[in-house]
Amino acid sequence: MNNFTFYTPTKIVFGKGAENSTGELTASFGGKKALVHYGGGSAVRSGLLIRVIDSLKKAGVKSVALGGVVPNPRLSKVYEGIELCRKEGVDFVIAVGGGSVIDSSKAIALGTVNEGDVWDFYIGKREAQRMLPVGAVLTMAAAGSEMSDSSVITKEEGALKRFYGHEMMRCKFSVLNPELTMTLPDYQTASGCVDILTHTMERYFCDGDSMQLTDGIAESLMRTVIHNARVLSKTPNDYNARAEIMWASSLSHNDLTGCGSGASDWATHMLEHELGGAFDVAHGAGLAALWGSWARYVCGKNISRFARFGANVMGVTGANEQETAVNGIKAVENFYREINMPTSIKELGLELTDEQISALAYKCSDGDSHTVGSFMKLTRIDMENIYKAAR
Amino acid sequence: MNNFTFYTPTKIVFGKGAENSTGELTASFGGKKALVHYGGGSAVRSGLLIRVIDSLKKAGVKSVALGGVVPNPRLSKVYEGIELCRKEGVDFVIAVGGGSVIDSSKAIALGTVNEGDVWDFYIGKREAQRMLPVGAVLTMAAAGSEMSDSSVITKEEGALKRFYGHEMMRCKFSVLNPELTMTLPDYQTASGCVDILTHTMERYFCDGDSMQLTDGIAESLMRTVIHNARVLSKTPNDYNARAEIMWASSLSHNDLTGCGSGASDWATHMLEHELGGAFDVAHGAGLAALWGSWARYVCGKNISRFARFGANVMGVTGANEQETAVNGIKAVENFYREINMPTSIKELGLELTDEQISALAYKCSDGDSHTVGSFMKLTRIDMENIYKAAR
Repeated sequence: MNNFTFYTPTKIVFGKGAENSTGELTASFGGKKALVHYGGGSAVRSGLLIRVIDSLKKAGVKSVALGGVVPNPRLSKVYEGIELCRKEGVDFVIAVGGGSVIDSSKAIALGTVNEGDVWDFYIGKREAQRMLPVGAVLTMAAAGSEMSDSSVITKEEGALKRFYGHEMMRCKFSVLNPELTMTLPDYQTASGCVDILTHTMERYFCDGDSMQLTDGIAESLMRTVIHNARVLSKTPNDYNARAEIMWASSLSHNDLTGCGSGASDWATHMLEHELGGAFDVAHGAGLAALWGSWARYVCGKNISRFARFGANVMGVTGANEQETAVNGIKAVENFYREINMPTSIKELGLELTDEQISALAYKCSDGDSHTVGSFMKLTRIDMENIYKAAR
Repeated sequence: MNNFTFYTPTKIVFGKGAENSTGELTASFGGKKALVHYGGGSAVRSGLLIRVIDSLKKAGVKSVALGGVVPNPRLSKVYEGIELCRKEGVDFVIAVGGGSVIDSSKAIALGTVNEGDVWDFYIGKREAQRMLPVGAVLTMAAAGSEMSDSSVITKEEGALKRFYGHEMMRCKFSVLNPELTMTLPDYQTASGCVDILTHTMERYFCDGDSMQLTDGIAESLMRTVIHNARVLSKTPNDYNARAEIMWASSLSHNDLTGCGSGASDWATHMLEHELGGAFDVAHGAGLAALWGSWARYVCGKNISRFARFGANVMGVTGANEQETAVNGIKAVENFYREINMPTSIKELGLELTDEQISALAYKCSDGDSHTVGSFMKLTRIDMENIYKAAR
């Protein structure tokens, strides 16, 4: 068992109408003037943006709005937000949207109050010293950014998708109303479910001893996601299923499912980040397309762990551990097909050449300079093999 | 499914040697001069107190110490702490001990910076406006006070054991080193395990719809506690078992196991508080003595819930729900016997007269003025019946 630190100071307000507490929450955390940051027109059309701004007004919090965040959120939009926050004297950033909007908000909150280029933090050049407080009104259960300590931003030049994590990057509050996710297209809902599931898988397939309590929580969470993703693929407006998925989203990525269980893996995420950065695929769909190939490639490193996963999460059996492990991986892929998620890169609508795969692996290994993953440390060659198997 | 708020800002540092980070943690949360509050001589004899004070010194935090907290912590000690903190200009309270020490620390932290009598908060006379920050170095896994928002204090005059809860009462940090619990007598360890289990049972047997994810987490946690309590009853120095129990202690009482699941019950706790306040029994042992009688008395209100508990937590079966429910209750009592915990008041070493039981029920119902519990709302008469069944 490994030592660990667990720190999730984000205040969660969960349920119907929760967004109406945004103003009160912002004021309680000291906000006087907020940037309300959002994505496309749906937050406007649904009236959510107005409700949030009204709630701020009622609590005496001024606001300015900035929309236009896209999936795989862009550095250029972050720069625009930073300039606006500085000009307007903003002291709080409120994300109204999904993971992309929250990640963009976190980057803006970093960039506004640190000197120099905010991108430096994402490429590991230096550490941030401070940050504006961030709150979130979540409209998509997927990224877990509403409780996580990280943000992923894509720099258009070179299609570089990079991650930055810091303790202070957890939201002060997150408002989680499952009803707000009901207008999502089914594909986005399913893609979100894959992302949530993968956040726990990345921690579950760890390098090191596991912790019985953590494993039990992780397995419960994964079963819950799989069950309710199936429900939503048939009845997208089931409130309880939306709620289970939304809460799972937050718990899946606030580190609860990794406590004491050693270094988590993240190889599937790293491989997907290259794919998503280069081709702009939906993140969860990209994970679904790659996971099975990753799992088959690495499972031999600890077949017992995959067998346990197969039995406890996917409910499969086998004549021996090897068979149970393989059946578990197949069951995940069958589940993905059932909810209309891809299990290959081709099913993402991409036909990659060997050269393109080499380029992805080269970038993912930062020019062949490091490995990714911890369950199995993947070299550039391993990455190529997995991309090819997933092709 | 019910709306909920979830807020656990306590920073957890978990594992071997974690206590050495106390100074750094205190300083990071702004502490300049700390009260180090502790119980009996064991924290002194083991050298823990010195290690904590050294860690504070290294981080540039001054300290004064106050020992002498006893189980069912006394209001008189709280007053002594408040006076000392005011005299010494203390701005941070560090609890070195178990739940009693943490609860006493929280009360001191409240009393130091609010005017008037701190007891007012515990008897519901008024609300606290502010509080000194509190950190904990935990030496006993039981009360969950290290992540909870509450404190229980006993006023000697009238043997009144009362509770106060407030969002700001969560510790800023808690240092959890499972090794620090190894010197506990077996009876205390087992009593702690019962307390932890009961914190989740109180939430699990709720009035209202449950949430699949919350139920799954709660059931995992209860299975983990039962399994590892058995391990510790045979091998008290098993580090991993100590760690599982310690982490379960925190998660059991930080509200995670109650999210979205309606009003939790707390009747067993209320009944035990009267018993513990009047006769000074170990809290967990008191809960063990009462729980079976409570469960048999109320299970008819929702037999399916008890049947689910029996099947998923205790692993029992039955010809029908009623039988599975009853077998589950029996299995809990057998488990208590196995770890040398009482299943009756007599086994606590008490022989209560009808008059004594009437007095307990009268106090528990605040002079027959309110019910306790939500799974079944218990009147004064119900309370008498349960005490008598547990006699």
